[in-house]
Amino acid sequence: MFSAIKHLGQKAAQAIDVELMTTHGFTIEQLMELAGLSVADSIAAEYARGRVLLCIGPGNNGGDGLVAARHLTHYGYRVSLFYPKQPQKDLYKSLLRQCGAFQIPVVHDLAAAISDSDLIVDAIFGFSFSGTPRAPFDGVLDALRASDKPVVSVDVPSGWDVEEGDPAGTGLRPDMLVSLTAPKLCAAGFHGRFHYLGGRFVPPSMAQSLGLPSYPGTSNCIRLR
Amino acid sequence: MFSAIKHLGQKAAQAIDVELMTTHGFTIEQLMELAGLSVADSIAAEYARGRVLLCIGPGNNGGDGLVAARHLTHYGYRVSLFYPKQPQKDLYKSLLRQCGAFQIPVVHDLAAAISDSDLIVDAIFGFSFSGTPRAPFDGVLDALRASDKPVVSVDVPSGWDVEEGDPAGTGLRPDMLVSLTAPKLCAAGFHGRFHYLGGRFVPPSMAQSLGLPSYPGTSNCIRLR
Repeated sequence: MFSAIKHLGQKAAQAIDVELMTTHGFTIEQLMELAGLSVADSIAAEYARGRVLLCIGPGNNGGDGLVAARHLTHYGYRVSLFYPKQPQKDLYKSLLRQCGAFQIPVVHDLAAAISDSDLIVDAIFGFSFSGTPRAPFDGVLDALRASDKPVVSVDVPSGWDVEEGDPAGTGLRPDMLVSLTAPKLCAAGFHGRFHYLGGRFVPPSMAQSLGLPSYPGTSNCIRLR
Repeated sequence: MFSAIKHLGQKAAQAIDVELMTTHGFTIEQLMELAGLSVADSIAAEYARGRVLLCIGPGNNGGDGLVAARHLTHYGYRVSLFYPKQPQKDLYKSLLRQCGAFQIPVVHDLAAAISDSDLIVDAIFGFSFSGTPRAPFDGVLDALRASDKPVVSVDVPSGWDVEEGDPAGTGLRPDMLVSLTAPKLCAAGFHGRFHYLGGRFVPPSMAQSLGLPSYPGTSNCIRLR
């Protein structure tokens, strides 16, 4: 189903982000809010209200995770954050401050946090990532891979190549992938249970050229597979 | 129902906005995006997909309307804007640019636009308004009052006193009111068919002190009455 949907390479994904924020006038705060909301809505569509640990990376993928954490709290999940590398940019500091207003704890013992969770959100690396994960995130990915808790990856399974995926089969095996704006090329190698699309902010002309499906009703997300 | 919910005076509403944006670290772009989304979702819950004319004021209430216009387009409504006084602030210019990316027309003949619409959104004045509407908005309100098209007011029926409402009974008679964050005092004088609450961004402690009801599931809005 949805076979007409385009899968984006790294440069195409970056170009679309630039187009949204320059030509079309969106701010990063708006796009991130709607992206994170759609991640929370995708999770709420498939997983019982329980304990969710969000592993937050140092860039925009982490920002999406911080937004999702807030909305998941609205939805009745018990949420905590593992956020080992907190950038000083105002955007991320504000998002973390908002999580503070929601009493969302930031935890430091990853092993204990994984053990105390029902679901883990991988909001570590997004479509800008390339190369090999470095400390401390290499260790985080090892811990997630070793765990038997279901993992939800935001946009790209962290550690995977954005285009090639995980040909060696040694990386994360998420249970859910929430593609944002449009799937990235690596999504073809995703074989978990739930593939969702979120980020319902794409103007009609862009949506048509990307072959995006129509979201149902007022939903912020749509199940692709 | 929901009798415990607090109704806010003008100063209390302003203080809550400040608290959200300073203490809790929200940006205006985030709050406006979620507020406008909830206006669109409230409309989609009650009115058939048709032609919607949004009358946009010069401040934040108008900004909420510009966001709602975009989401209504996502939902399949045919949307147009009447926006007679466009401020030069980047925030509003960006929101209008986004509407441009959605091919949402800005119309200039109000009488024709009202006649061509199935539903009108009053996003003219919000909780900061006081005094008497001046040109061109006095004329816009006269035209809306004279029309038999249903009107949806965003947060406050424009022209009403934020606290006293419309004691003379000569002002707008909206069919729907979408209160944002929490109802304002004037909402007690609203006797239209649909009273909704939107703006699902309030931290739990603030929601509790305001006596806000729990939103259902992942919904961005809730019907109060």
